[in-house]
Amino acid sequence: MAPASVLTPRSEDFPRWYQDVVAKAELADNGPVRGTMVIRPYGYAIWERIQAEIDARIKATGARNAYFPLFIPESYLRREAEHVEGFSPELAVVTYGGGKELEEPVVVRPTSETVINAFFAKWVQSHRDLPLLINQWSNVVRWELRPRILLRTTEFLWQEGHTAHATEEEARRYALRILMDVYREVMVDILAVPVLTGRKTERERFAGATTTWTCEAMMGDAKALQMGTSHELGQNFARAFGIQFQTETGGTAYPWQTSWGSSTRLLGGLIMAHGDDAGLRVPPRVAPVQVAVVLVRDEEGAGQAAAQLVRELAAAGLRVELDDRVDTSYGRRATAWDLKGVPVRVDVGPRELAAGQATLARRVPGTKETVPLRAVSEVVPAALEEAQRDLLAQAESFQRERTAEVSSVPEAAEAGQAGFARLPWASLGPEGEAELATAGVTVRCLVGPDGGLPLPGQDAGTVAVVGRAY
Amino acid sequence: MAPASVLTPRSEDFPRWYQDVVAKAELADNGPVRGTMVIRPYGYAIWERIQAEIDARIKATGARNAYFPLFIPESYLRREAEHVEGFSPELAVVTYGGGKELEEPVVVRPTSETVINAFFAKWVQSHRDLPLLINQWSNVVRWELRPRILLRTTEFLWQEGHTAHATEEEARRYALRILMDVYREVMVDILAVPVLTGRKTERERFAGATTTWTCEAMMGDAKALQMGTSHELGQNFARAFGIQFQTETGGTAYPWQTSWGSSTRLLGGLIMAHGDDAGLRVPPRVAPVQVAVVLVRDEEGAGQAAAQLVRELAAAGLRVELDDRVDTSYGRRATAWDLKGVPVRVDVGPRELAAGQATLARRVPGTKETVPLRAVSEVVPAALEEAQRDLLAQAESFQRERTAEVSSVPEAAEAGQAGFARLPWASLGPEGEAELATAGVTVRCLVGPDGGLPLPGQDAGTVAVVGRAY
Repeated sequence: MAPASVLTPRSEDFPRWYQDVVAKAELADNGPVRGTMVIRPYGYAIWERIQAEIDARIKATGARNAYFPLFIPESYLRREAEHVEGFSPELAVVTYGGGKELEEPVVVRPTSETVINAFFAKWVQSHRDLPLLINQWSNVVRWELRPRILLRTTEFLWQEGHTAHATEEEARRYALRILMDVYREVMVDILAVPVLTGRKTERERFAGATTTWTCEAMMGDAKALQMGTSHELGQNFARAFGIQFQTETGGTAYPWQTSWGSSTRLLGGLIMAHGDDAGLRVPPRVAPVQVAVVLVRDEEGAGQAAAQLVRELAAAGLRVELDDRVDTSYGRRATAWDLKGVPVRVDVGPRELAAGQATLARRVPGTKETVPLRAVSEVVPAALEEAQRDLLAQAESFQRERTAEVSSVPEAAEAGQAGFARLPWASLGPEGEAELATAGVTVRCLVGPDGGLPLPGQDAGTVAVVGRAY
Repeated sequence: MAPASVLTPRSEDFPRWYQDVVAKAELADNGPVRGTMVIRPYGYAIWERIQAEIDARIKATGARNAYFPLFIPESYLRREAEHVEGFSPELAVVTYGGGKELEEPVVVRPTSETVINAFFAKWVQSHRDLPLLINQWSNVVRWELRPRILLRTTEFLWQEGHTAHATEEEARRYALRILMDVYREVMVDILAVPVLTGRKTERERFAGATTTWTCEAMMGDAKALQMGTSHELGQNFARAFGIQFQTETGGTAYPWQTSWGSSTRLLGGLIMAHGDDAGLRVPPRVAPVQVAVVLVRDEEGAGQAAAQLVRELAAAGLRVELDDRVDTSYGRRATAWDLKGVPVRVDVGPRELAAGQATLARRVPGTKETVPLRAVSEVVPAALEEAQRDLLAQAESFQRERTAEVSSVPEAAEAGQAGFARLPWASLGPEGEAELATAGVTVRCLVGPDGGLPLPGQDAGTVAVVGRAY
């Protein structure tokens, strides 16, 4: 276990603990322009694994990646009026280029929605061009007055998907496929973060959408984090950008669209969902280092034994790193590996080695055991699987414990301070929702009476899950 | 073969042919802000494969990926004076953010050099922190007054690597490892583009560098394209940014640095090196579609046979696509696959099927043969290997044919118009180089007398390769 002094304890000051972990686990740092960030190699390596998992699933739905420009003419943002209202104060505007003032200022994309839809208008001509399924990985900029590293930054990395379909039903099916088979699956199966999947209320949904579907997770301070959203856009953007297609029967129609996104905010969610007072705890499936083999002292063949273990573990397909920095004390190094949340550590020292053994330290649950040297490469894969399972189970039980069933708005406002509160939407309604907002509590999503996804547009029988949110 | 009318012939107007291929093979399109581009799904899929090949080799050298901010304070660009001179007119400057004018304008990164070095100054403290090997994949912006899609655009995608080492020798070894084991290997082995590797002259080297190493390729119009560069920076940036480390003996020293980059320009190079009058020819190792199975007419079980072939080819690990759009004429579809440069096409029609056969069309060299249906999944992998080899061999022999040995500056100026000219650097020198420039001919690189890399700083005995360049 790491000395408690390394990090501010979570119970004392959660935001401070978060900043400490981000800095000391070398995940990210603030950039020189306020609100921007540097994602350091360790944080970026986790992001690359998250990206790969999301990307593979997006491609499995049939979508293809493309790249659209960073700069958007200011005039484009006026085409979808409702949309521009939402972004205007968030825009970064380029007024000089090539050494002189620009005739028309260009905006640094807050999303690529407008430019992608302008190209959809060119690419979609016939029903044969549908569905058109496009995804983009890129940076976007939304000027943040109260930035919080990895969670709300002026620049962040994300993927945004945009699709066009011949029918509303097909668009809905696709939006839900992204929600469940891409976002939910990566969050639960890979990041070990349990998420509620549901529909946003009218108040909370994306301005340009007819329906917004969301994945909501509970962080270690019992606040909610929106981890990813999938929108049904109806024909709003199609009308605004003149996207039309010739139908099979020879008529003309506007396609039905979706858009969906997830971002580097997922890294922040990972930290806050799994971290403890000793640091980060990285789920093995996205851990850049799954096993650290720590050479305690380089005596009596311990160095060779450690190197041999590293070879065996790498041959077993694990991501393993040798820590042979014996000029730094063992205690400091063990603390550093805990801080970085590496799931399993194997300590190799001359004493255990003499008995043909090594010490296996599990970050989850934080226990140590002695293992015969020749059994290490069998025990470690099982330990990693357990760690993956335990992280999810712990987060699930935390969420369960911090979720209250209530029946009135005042109860929801109170319970919502300490976690999630569930109450029938019929008992809340838009007025109750506005009242909750004055207490800093929002409806995170509406879920169906059976816990499944509610029907779009049908509020009857749905349950509102409310809480404070990042 | 595609009808000649689809594209402007290369011999008639090469730049026009290039624009035609980019548009008609659906590789890229111009963005709404002049000089920006949209990389369409087919082009982006090729880029993703190039990226993956480069990324794996960069990681194999020990470098780690990270991400630095898009926005850089204007003051940062003044720290390395020589460097800012080179970029100033190319900068895009953000003056408004969050709805109001910024106190200090921020620049959209033309490279991340300055901000990365500012962080190196924090991260490098001791000799134990060296070597520090960082790579970044990102977009960058350099305002282009004469943009050319994929080759010279206001925004482009690239990777930039930055490293710091304890000694000059180590920095040099690393810069050359990137040149040869990353860039050269990907260009030759994967993109099938032969490159000359050599050193830039003082006139041509990067402003902040002490030595610039380069990979230079010959395009289909016999002009040169710089495909990637690797710089030794000496201690210039370390001094400018105050990067210092404590040596093993307790002293203080500036590290020796390198930087290196390659970009979406490689896509342009791929098109211009391999394309012919029928369109693109994609090397199989980066082809998003290696085999197109084309259903000629859906009669007498041809549909099922084609689908079965697709399954077999996919099971053999190939990237295969079924073209069953039988409502479009076979001829149009065959032309479209040729345009997109898919290496192998397998045509399945009722007539051949009756004889248990299919037609295999090879994009390189453009021949057709009849193959027993059951042999297709054995023949295709071999055909792909041949295509990869033939593309490289063709480009190599083209480069050889268009390279002249000359001995005087006037001869070099003339031969440099039609291809590459080689002459001893001793016969050229800085004055001859300036004279060539007036004829639009530049020294692409200096190579050693034996064809290998010349020693840094030693010009004696080197051979200058000159030509016109993009």
